[in-house]
Amino acid sequence: MTKPALTALARSLPASVPFVGPEAAERANGKPFIARLGANENTFGPSPRAIAAMQKAASEVWMYADPESHDLRIALAVHHGVAPENIMVGEGIDTLLGVLVRLYVGQNDPVVTSDGAYPTFNYHVAGFGGVLHKVPYLDDHEDPASLIAKAREVGAKLIYIANPDNPMGTWHNADVIDQMIADVPDGSLLVLDEAYIEMAPAGTAPAMQIDNPNLIRMRTFSKAHGMAGARVGYAIGAAEVIDAFNKVRNHFGMGRISQAGALAALADHDWLAHIQTQIAQARDRITQIAADNGLTALPSATNFVAIDCGQDGNFARRVLAALIAQGIFVRMPFVAPQDRCIRISCGTPAEMDRFAEALPKALDTMS
Amino acid sequence: MTKPALTALARSLPASVPFVGPEAAERANGKPFIARLGANENTFGPSPRAIAAMQKAASEVWMYADPESHDLRIALAVHHGVAPENIMVGEGIDTLLGVLVRLYVGQNDPVVTSDGAYPTFNYHVAGFGGVLHKVPYLDDHEDPASLIAKAREVGAKLIYIANPDNPMGTWHNADVIDQMIADVPDGSLLVLDEAYIEMAPAGTAPAMQIDNPNLIRMRTFSKAHGMAGARVGYAIGAAEVIDAFNKVRNHFGMGRISQAGALAALADHDWLAHIQTQIAQARDRITQIAADNGLTALPSATNFVAIDCGQDGNFARRVLAALIAQGIFVRMPFVAPQDRCIRISCGTPAEMDRFAEALPKALDTMS
Repeated sequence: MTKPALTALARSLPASVPFVGPEAAERANGKPFIARLGANENTFGPSPRAIAAMQKAASEVWMYADPESHDLRIALAVHHGVAPENIMVGEGIDTLLGVLVRLYVGQNDPVVTSDGAYPTFNYHVAGFGGVLHKVPYLDDHEDPASLIAKAREVGAKLIYIANPDNPMGTWHNADVIDQMIADVPDGSLLVLDEAYIEMAPAGTAPAMQIDNPNLIRMRTFSKAHGMAGARVGYAIGAAEVIDAFNKVRNHFGMGRISQAGALAALADHDWLAHIQTQIAQARDRITQIAADNGLTALPSATNFVAIDCGQDGNFARRVLAALIAQGIFVRMPFVAPQDRCIRISCGTPAEMDRFAEALPKALDTMS
Repeated sequence: MTKPALTALARSLPASVPFVGPEAAERANGKPFIARLGANENTFGPSPRAIAAMQKAASEVWMYADPESHDLRIALAVHHGVAPENIMVGEGIDTLLGVLVRLYVGQNDPVVTSDGAYPTFNYHVAGFGGVLHKVPYLDDHEDPASLIAKAREVGAKLIYIANPDNPMGTWHNADVIDQMIADVPDGSLLVLDEAYIEMAPAGTAPAMQIDNPNLIRMRTFSKAHGMAGARVGYAIGAAEVIDAFNKVRNHFGMGRISQAGALAALADHDWLAHIQTQIAQARDRITQIAADNGLTALPSATNFVAIDCGQDGNFARRVLAALIAQGIFVRMPFVAPQDRCIRISCGTPAEMDRFAEALPKALDTMS
């Protein structure tokens, strides 16, 4: 009996995972982490109003969610001063990126990103047969001019940039991004991932250019809104770009509880302000802990801080391993020279205390 | 400025939706439905233990879900007497079908299904450029022999069958499905959609043939478990077939609240038994209501009943419209001659009363 054959493209792909979850490490270690600071989750949690809305929705979960995410889309449109036709809600930015790549990237189509930027985007590009062209970071920042130049050189279908950046936490002001948008080559679509934008300084997000068909922006409830496990992201773009999602998206993919939670979270401005304060304090604390250990923290516009361990990637990987061995879940950049850093998510004061205790011990094991 | 170009495949696809949600009709009508009986949702709701688990998980939703769905996968493996490597959890059967089609169906690859079977599967096949070959229903049942013959004729990559069937509610006994599995042609993969299996008579589900690489089965928490809005489905298959999902799936697509709810629902056998009883009673009630109006209900192994309106599709569509006008959300088969029926989901006694009141009025408008 002949087995069914995968497509040629699927055969060529490895079984891979952009990120291994912390639960897998916990199972391997036989004990839970004492601080979960590796996935840029928001340990301060979602708005109490969002929690209440999700708890209420739990008993209504026998119903499919509205496939149009109508109420949430309306609220997001009002929030951003655009039309509902400019918003596509999906099961997290990962899902939206996957659909976007599927729509625009065929076999051997060129795509441009930074070397060391978000691996899940790269996973989707590979998964649809695209060819990734990577440009290096410049002084630990994504480099808009190089991204644009490379896109022009290779005729990129998509150009990916995160602002603020993950994994470095660095950012560009709106005027730099505006210039990048203006420079997008003919036929390219700029994917501006703003997952961390709510935690960046005022003046980081460019104004909406909502009728620009060469730009799509990605936002999420996973970071500032503290709802990573609810899977709610959204894309903002020109109506024609947004409508293309309806050709292939999984209309009934959104969770009903998640929609209810996101709607409540969006309305709770006080909680978001509270979170922004907590995160700013945690960033300062991480910076201080780094300094106390003779290390340098990079400035961050996100809910994490990259700490320069002062040597090469091998050294930082050993620091990382020594932290994980102490029950501190952290991750780090993949690519040199950014891999001289470890990346610490903002946590509660108690979690920051545990990190402060673990870091010098980790460094002690290096000598 | 040149706009970014969709792939040739994406350009060829219409912006379409397999099912319009009831919320869209409610918005158009300016009022909510008084009975939601159109999407085969389980109005009896999820297990109270599942609701409690989801409510507890709501405050932990700042964490991403375990991308391996480890605990749920273990529980499902135990439940089915297979290994965890034989289970893939995903965001509903729709998502799993999409990934499966992506893995196996390339441009112009042939796929076989029944004419009038689940449209979301067809949507995925079209979305990846596959070519659908459809065989007719036989006496309102899917026709395994014809499906197999057609698959052999066209060299199908995938063969889709739902048992019990949607939209007709009819079913085949396990021996018929076992024969179909045995007859799967070389190189074909049989997709056995068992979304409604928990509501079918004993003897409907064939035994696991877990090492058979030409078979994959789909199950869900959306129907008997009453968790449609949580988006939890799973595939059961040979380890090599299941592992292929890891090449392209969205690892962090599952919701954390959903995982917790599904785990609790699976353990609550008493609630499932209660639901099975409620659904059997509702099926009988729908059958009786049909008879009271001079119509014939088809036997059903699901949580819905197809009612033969006794004339053609145009007649049934008018009955459907007259029910919807009275606030009863129902749907119907798409294809003749099955479209002589309307499809009524099982509901609470109060919802059944509303249907019983509305149906004769709907039929009155026909004369």
